[in-house]
Amino acid sequence: MRLRNKPWAKDALAAHPEMVIQDPAQWKGRWHERFGNNNPIHIEIGSGKGQFVSGMARQNPNINYIGIEIQESVLVVALEKALLADVPNLQLLHVNGGQVTDYFEDGEVDQIYLNFSDPWPKKRHAKRRLTHESFLVGYEKVLPPFGELHFKTDNRGLFEYSLASFSQFGLVLKQVWLDLHQVEFPGNVMTEYEEKFSAKGHPIYRVEVIFPQERIVFKQPK
Amino acid sequence: MRLRNKPWAKDALAAHPEMVIQDPAQWKGRWHERFGNNNPIHIEIGSGKGQFVSGMARQNPNINYIGIEIQESVLVVALEKALLADVPNLQLLHVNGGQVTDYFEDGEVDQIYLNFSDPWPKKRHAKRRLTHESFLVGYEKVLPPFGELHFKTDNRGLFEYSLASFSQFGLVLKQVWLDLHQVEFPGNVMTEYEEKFSAKGHPIYRVEVIFPQERIVFKQPK
Repeated sequence: MRLRNKPWAKDALAAHPEMVIQDPAQWKGRWHERFGNNNPIHIEIGSGKGQFVSGMARQNPNINYIGIEIQESVLVVALEKALLADVPNLQLLHVNGGQVTDYFEDGEVDQIYLNFSDPWPKKRHAKRRLTHESFLVGYEKVLPPFGELHFKTDNRGLFEYSLASFSQFGLVLKQVWLDLHQVEFPGNVMTEYEEKFSAKGHPIYRVEVIFPQERIVFKQPK
Repeated sequence: MRLRNKPWAKDALAAHPEMVIQDPAQWKGRWHERFGNNNPIHIEIGSGKGQFVSGMARQNPNINYIGIEIQESVLVVALEKALLADVPNLQLLHVNGGQVTDYFEDGEVDQIYLNFSDPWPKKRHAKRRLTHESFLVGYEKVLPPFGELHFKTDNRGLFEYSLASFSQFGLVLKQVWLDLHQVEFPGNVMTEYEEKFSAKGHPIYRVEVIFPQERIVFKQPK
């Protein structure tokens, strides 16, 4: 997502250390302490302008949410929403979302959300997609056995790629939606992108993936 | 598929024993003998009016094709097409497609096609869908390790169900297409349904699934 540069964003983020964490590695293994309770922890990697993670935090006060976003110019919008939502169960991390093992202990995260992640459409950039196996390895470490990843996108190519990537890594597709807004889905919190693209008539794809206790990585026979 | 009853169909099928096999169990384990060569054998379960399987047989003379269809009234149309196509590498079986182990020896089939299978949309009919695990067990038996199933449909609900069913059975999604006609796909042979529904602007879904040598059936934890 490209936005105008906001020179004041840095200061705004720094002014709210109770909400925005710039050095989350210091809380690794101690997130329940940070939230002051033992509720489950759900993280969104690439939380953008924060509508989803704020909305979820408001909807589910007994779950702790962590939105991770590296871009200052959008994180500052998420901060605004988070402050307005007035939710004690939300934290924002100003770091790169791909490196979850730097900020979370093994099994510390109960669920992962990916929403409208950068599709990186060129084949040579496949490794940068947040559903590439190199990232799945990290997600698996921070999730417990049978932990889940929930992924939404309007990008057909990314979704096609991701289904195959999950499957070949040995993950299990719990449920797939190929046009989310055509069916009842109670409690769906829309992201900014989702509002925009579904209004244009694009189907929204969604999948819930389980990280099983045992898995087999697929290898083509020689 | 419902078609007018064709009282003459029975006789027409019986008049072509070189093409239509009414009792395929007798050829179990001897299909290569029947074809008179050792080329790979690909089967289509539910071949309907036969445009796909005839087209494939014409396109790939070094592969043996078997179309399986229980309904006389559509199988007779497939027979007509097969006779016109004049392909020695095609056979039609007038039997129920779900029971593949009755007609094929273990590992005798190299590839399976399912095209526009009956969606059985009601949940209580899920067991009748040709991608239900009870059928996957049979497909696995007749395929070799790393054998593939290729599935096309325009039915969103059936495709969503099937992706999860394949995955939970421990199969591997090799590649997924969520709008087949939007991309280059050399050699695609359209079925009658595919022509009709893609002309209406429906997306055509496609997946290639691998039956790996080792798999884990997913079970929810207690």
